Amino acid sequence: MIIHVVNPNTTASMTDKIAAAARQVARTGTDILATQPDMGPVSIEGYYDEAYAIPGMLARIREANVIGVAAHVIACFDDTGLDAARSISDAPVIGIGEAGYHAASLIAGKFSIVTTLARSIPVMEHNLVRYGLASRCARVRAAGIEVLALEDPASGAVDKISAEIEAAKQSDHAEAIVLGCAGMADLAAHLSAKHGLPVIDGVACAVAFAEALVSVGLKTSRLGGYSPPLRKTYVGSFASYAPA
Amino acid sequence: MIIHVVNPNTTASMTDKIAAAARQVARTGTDILATQPDMGPVSIEGYYDEAYAIPGMLARIREANVIGVAAHVIACFDDTGLDAARSISDAPVIGIGEAGYHAASLIAGKFSIVTTLARSIPVMEHNLVRYGLASRCARVRAAGIEVLALEDPASGAVDKISAEIEAAKQSDHAEAIVLGCAGMADLAAHLSAKHGLPVIDGVACAVAFAEALVSVGLKTSRLGGYSPPLRKTYVGSFASYAPA
Amino acid sequence: MIIHVVNPNTTASMTDKIAAAARQVARTGTDILATQPDMGPVSIEGYYDEAYAIPGMLARIREANVIGVAAHVIACFDDTGLDAARSISDAPVIGIGEAGYHAASLIAGKFSIVTTLARSIPVMEHNLVRYGLASRCARVRAAGIEVLALEDPASGAVDKISAEIEAAKQSDHAEAIVLGCAGMADLAAHLSAKHGLPVIDGVACAVAFAEALVSVGLKTSRLGGYSPPLRKTYVGSFASYAPA
Amino acid sequence: MIIHVVNPNTTASMTDKIAAAARQVARTGTDILATQPDMGPVSIEGYYDEAYAIPGMLARIREANVIGVAAHVIACFDDTGLDAARSISDAPVIGIGEAGYHAASLIAGKFSIVTTLARSIPVMEHNLVRYGLASRCARVRAAGIEVLALEDPASGAVDKISAEIEAAKQSDHAEAIVLGCAGMADLAAHLSAKHGLPVIDGVACAVAFAEALVSVGLKTSRLGGYSPPLRKTYVGSFASYAPA
Amino acid sequence: MIIHVVNPNTTASMTDKIAAAARQVARTGTDILATQPDMGPVSIEGYYDEAYAIPGMLARIREANVIGVAAHVIACFDDTGLDAARSISDAPVIGIGEAGYHAASLIAGKFSIVTTLARSIPVMEHNLVRYGLASRCARVRAAGIEVLALEDPASGAVDKISAEIEAAKQSDHAEAIVLGCAGMADLAAHLSAKHGLPVIDGVACAVAFAEALVSVGLKTSRLGGYSPPLRKTYVGSFASYAPA
Amino acid sequence: MIIHVVNPNTTASMTDKIAAAARQVARTGTDILATQPDMGPVSIEGYYDEAYAIPGMLARIREANVIGVAAHVIACFDDTGLDAARSISDAPVIGIGEAGYHAASLIAGKFSIVTTLARSIPVMEHNLVRYGLASRCARVRAAGIEVLALEDPASGAVDKISAEIEAAKQSDHAEAIVLGCAGMADLAAHLSAKHGLPVIDGVACAVAFAEALVSVGLKTSRLGGYSPPLRKTYVGSFASYAPA
Repeated sequence: MIIHVVNPNTTASMTDKIAAAARQVARTGTDILATQPDMGPVSIEGYYDEAYAIPGMLARIREANVIGVAAHVIACFDDTGLDAARSISDAPVIGIGEAGYHAASLIAGKFSIVTTLARSIPVMEHNLVRYGLASRCARVRAAGIEVLALEDPASGAVDKISAEIEAAKQSDHAEAIVLGCAGMADLAAHLSAKHGLPVIDGVACAVAFAEALVSVGLKTSRLGGYSPPLRKTYVGSFASYAPA
Repeated sequence: MIIHVVNPNTTASMTDKIAAAARQVARTGTDILATQPDMGPVSIEGYYDEAYAIPGMLARIREANVIGVAAHVIACFDDTGLDAARSISDAPVIGIGEAGYHAASLIAGKFSIVTTLARSIPVMEHNLVRYGLASRCARVRAAGIEVLALEDPASGAVDKISAEIEAAKQSDHAEAIVLGCAGMADLAAHLSAKHGLPVIDGVACAVAFAEALVSVGLKTSRLGGYSPPLRKTYVGSFASYAPA
Repeated sequence: MIIHVVNPNTTASMTDKIAAAARQVARTGTDILATQPDMGPVSIEGYYDEAYAIPGMLARIREANVIGVAAHVIACFDDTGLDAARSISDAPVIGIGEAGYHAASLIAGKFSIVTTLARSIPVMEHNLVRYGLASRCARVRAAGIEVLALEDPASGAVDKISAEIEAAKQSDHAEAIVLGCAGMADLAAHLSAKHGLPVIDGVACAVAFAEALVSVGLKTSRLGGYSPPLRKTYVGSFASYAPA
Repeated sequence: MIIHVVNPNTTASMTDKIAAAARQVARTGTDILATQPDMGPVSIEGYYDEAYAIPGMLARIREANVIGVAAHVIACFDDTGLDAARSISDAPVIGIGEAGYHAASLIAGKFSIVTTLARSIPVMEHNLVRYGLASRCARVRAAGIEVLALEDPASGAVDKISAEIEAAKQSDHAEAIVLGCAGMADLAAHLSAKHGLPVIDGVACAVAFAEALVSVGLKTSRLGGYSPPLRKTYVGSFASYAPA
Repeated sequence: MIIHVVNPNTTASMTDKIAAAARQVARTGTDILATQPDMGPVSIEGYYDEAYAIPGMLARIREANVIGVAAHVIACFDDTGLDAARSISDAPVIGIGEAGYHAASLIAGKFSIVTTLARSIPVMEHNLVRYGLASRCARVRAAGIEVLALEDPASGAVDKISAEIEAAKQSDHAEAIVLGCAGMADLAAHLSAKHGLPVIDGVACAVAFAEALVSVGLKTSRLGGYSPPLRKTYVGSFASYAPA
Repeated sequence: MIIHVVNPNTTASMTDKIAAAARQVARTGTDILATQPDMGPVSIEGYYDEAYAIPGMLARIREANVIGVAAHVIACFDDTGLDAARSISDAPVIGIGEAGYHAASLIAGKFSIVTTLARSIPVMEHNLVRYGLASRCARVRAAGIEVLALEDPASGAVDKISAEIEAAKQSDHAEAIVLGCAGMADLAAHLSAKHGLPVIDGVACAVAFAEALVSVGLKTSRLGGYSPPLRKTYVGSFASYAPA
């Protein structure tokens, strides 16, 4: 099966890192198709970036649907454009934030999230409320680092994340940690060993859950909010994105 | 003061109707600047349309901020792009869905919403949960009519909406009704008189609340989720939308 | 239009202060009718005071309804007697607590409240739960000052309030502050500038929202909990308050 | 021990009926002191009546505290003035609504309430939310009868209540019923036998729970919202009610 | 009346202590039948112990039902096996955790729980959510002591519990404390006097509430989740426990 | 990898059916070890049966842990003994109810459950509340059939289930269905095709999610509620089950 992993930002190096994380966990026989939009922000840090990431990302979803992928993974912790992606896909669509929260709920009573910047906290809290899993999350914590600083060893990012994990364990009584950024995918194993509790990378979980849904034959519901878009005219530079 | 009312879809006749509703309620001294995006869907019915409405709508928000408007009103019941708009505006930004729910909460214990198509119900339920007002909403009902049918007298739209209002009154114990579409703005007074309970048009409420926030000097918070976007590169056809 | 602002306690100097705050924000053409009960407590600090403030306050509401005011504002942060007032008024009735919470919800993701004494915290938490806005309030904080101390410059009240605002910003991640006492109305602008986030005075918001509801023609629902009182006998010294 | 049962309305025949229900369940050695206010409404049907019932009822609470009663029961399903009564009493204070809900929660998973008029539904829903027991209540139903009609055999009240109980069993999956009016106290046993599920009278439960709290030595907390009222001036005809 | 108090662990000395606490509060005419299972753990600290405590405890419940007891009290703060016990008993069944939470809710706005080990916190939080009373509980605190250490004066247990009570009062704004272990029953009076707020022992409350339910004639509902078990075969060493 | 699928009831034919469903979905390289307890009820219908199913099931979990399985699946929709099983397993443990709810949440906005008997509804509602997913479940429906009737073609079970699915689609606006019994595993594909929405079998989902968690290297947290049981004595016939 082909699993389409779309990085909603336009930074190719991050796409590569995500693809590597995805391939590492993918079972034999699963091909990872990693893409990124050709228009939009180089990283997603807040609601505005998100708005300009979605149109290009949905274009990648549509293209992958034409190819006939088995599932899509949206590789941003904001689960950018998840609902819109589902409304155009029979194939399952899983966000990495969502995947991390569900995985944590299956192995721990309560979890905390450690993300990059404080501005992303409300986005995640909002998602948790919608997903219904807010009661499972003890707290969303920000390490105070920018997304792209994760690529820079001199940024001290790992130490800051580690300090928040320790605080989550002591103060939040967190029993597991969800790392709140696709760019942290490579840190999970080290931090889990160091702190003695599960530290969860959403990219790996999303790929594995996508495989799981495919293997049981489940597809996205086409009723209610995920009904296929009605055929209508889109004008201007978005004309070609109109639902067919 | 200038209040910018942006219709997030690209149908000019609907912009005119919304502008008329806005001007009818605006106080002396308030000018209504009515705009619509130049790219995107002709109507917004579900998550996919929303994704392609937001970028063009945010462009209008930015332009209006340069002009120096006192407040923005987003004239779609989905409150399309509300969070992103707030993150780029000192001026208050109010969605017409949000305005309708808050107004209903100030004059009734419980309200029901009557919207167009069932596919929009989850979007509104999702917003209600986020706003905290889900417990005040007895039920979101769909009249089973497309947005553009509201413009067509032969569609029977008014009778269908009226039937749902009666059902809300009898079955949901609704004490007020929020009309869940900008295109229903002209029906509120008639339906309120017919059914003997407040029937609320979000466009009018949003304009009036915008005036209210301006008159008390309140502006959008610039902390947390509404922090101004970080300066960064946007690529491709969205390059010019990058935060400055 | 006439907006009736009733101070539910019997301290005339506080009524004057509230009236001044109301007039400052009222639009041209709005007259503020400021009243206070002629029986009851000189300040409202807890459930017991509230019980003896309501009957006299409702008398003022009834009198104002005879005069024909456009709306009522209840100028105590407990929203004293709000439901009873609505059940006897076609005109909208807005509590200043309620107004502050709704205003905060329109400009910020999360807000904290700073009130006077700890004994008032449960009253406000209870109101927040009923209004549905508890999820929007990060925390209700008490500055540890009595209501009437706000009139005394030597009380250090402003510094105590300012310290709580700073704590709300740092610890609660509050994006806006609601000042939880009508007597703090004159502090909002100064504290907002000092702390760099919106600081909200409920009196101003309630007047502006009352104007807003009037301008869109909305009245209190007369169904359900706000149905007009049934005609019946009241005995003893309350005989004259019986619903006609 | 003396248990003070206060009927917050001024109808002596209802006080007698409540006192009889209380005495029937009281253990040997418990004396029931039944009182009613000397000012206020003859029945409580909605928020306005409630506002004028509380001051006279609190006078009875204060008098009983001077006598030295072991506990108070507030015999109206709205739990009229419960918080204010607690703030002036070391002795436990229990409302009959509250007692009924707690009793139902101890013997059934979910319960429904059958009350008199639809206007009382929001009051009870509001109480359930505050008490935290809203999730245990399947539905609040109104039989469409006025409180005083319960005294009139020709009113058909019992049949209407019985029909709502059957509907609660079938449609709400209610496992127990709470009768939502002090005036229904004498119907519980008959209706329980007829419908084959527990039918709960709040008066009996409140007396029994009051005895229970006394026997374990528990008193009302004097912290937070139930702190004793601060000494202050009350003016006008309420001067004598000021906290000493 | 006979009230059956079952200690779900097998430690006879704890049964004696619980029985003494029960007898101290029981009214004249109430006999306490104290039992313990003859198989299972010597103390219950977590989900696993609970699983092996329930079968033996249910055997005691069945035996007591044959004797014809008026009510059952389950004397473990986890409310071990409460639902299963209800499904085989017409007589009311009350857990001591549940009893403590309901009692606290009748005398205080918010309470905190002080239990033994951190591993028990999730069990209690889970129960609070189910009972609906989670919103009334400010926080569940663990004193960091094993259940059987409560029997050992040298363990410093009382000081650790006292320190948590003080923290609950200061940090949680708790207005009452529920002691979260049957083995703490003898500490309540001393700690209440020391800290100036109600400190609640669940054993006493459960016995008193059991007497209360019996005196008003309420029995466990036999509908829904508490329907009597269907007659069926149990195999192996549990064959004799099959529902008759 | 070996996945241990334990049927918590003692009916071997149902174990076989579950094992077949598990093997059908298991990926190449996954071995299904299917077990059932040697003591306990032949089917689980309510809280009492559950209590006597758990000890024997935990024995199977322990044995499988000695063997060294990669994960456990608890194949009863009540998620019988899930918490206790987790506290003794490093390997992930997934309940089929839980798995069904999480899967539904990943492909639909709202789902309904169709289970066997009404007595099981509260158990599932209780689990949904704990898992945090109650807000995603529109309604739990019972088809009114006993578990073992699912094995009997003459029982009309399929038609009854199908009728409830249609009702869920029309009345609950369910966008997906979770079949609420392990014995319904073979019906999912047929019912999905018939009703045009995803119909979810928890057994398949649990196996696939177990594989997913294993493939990403996640194990059960050993903190908080899932801490390993403390070493202690178990007495009587349960002596050998004491934690080592």
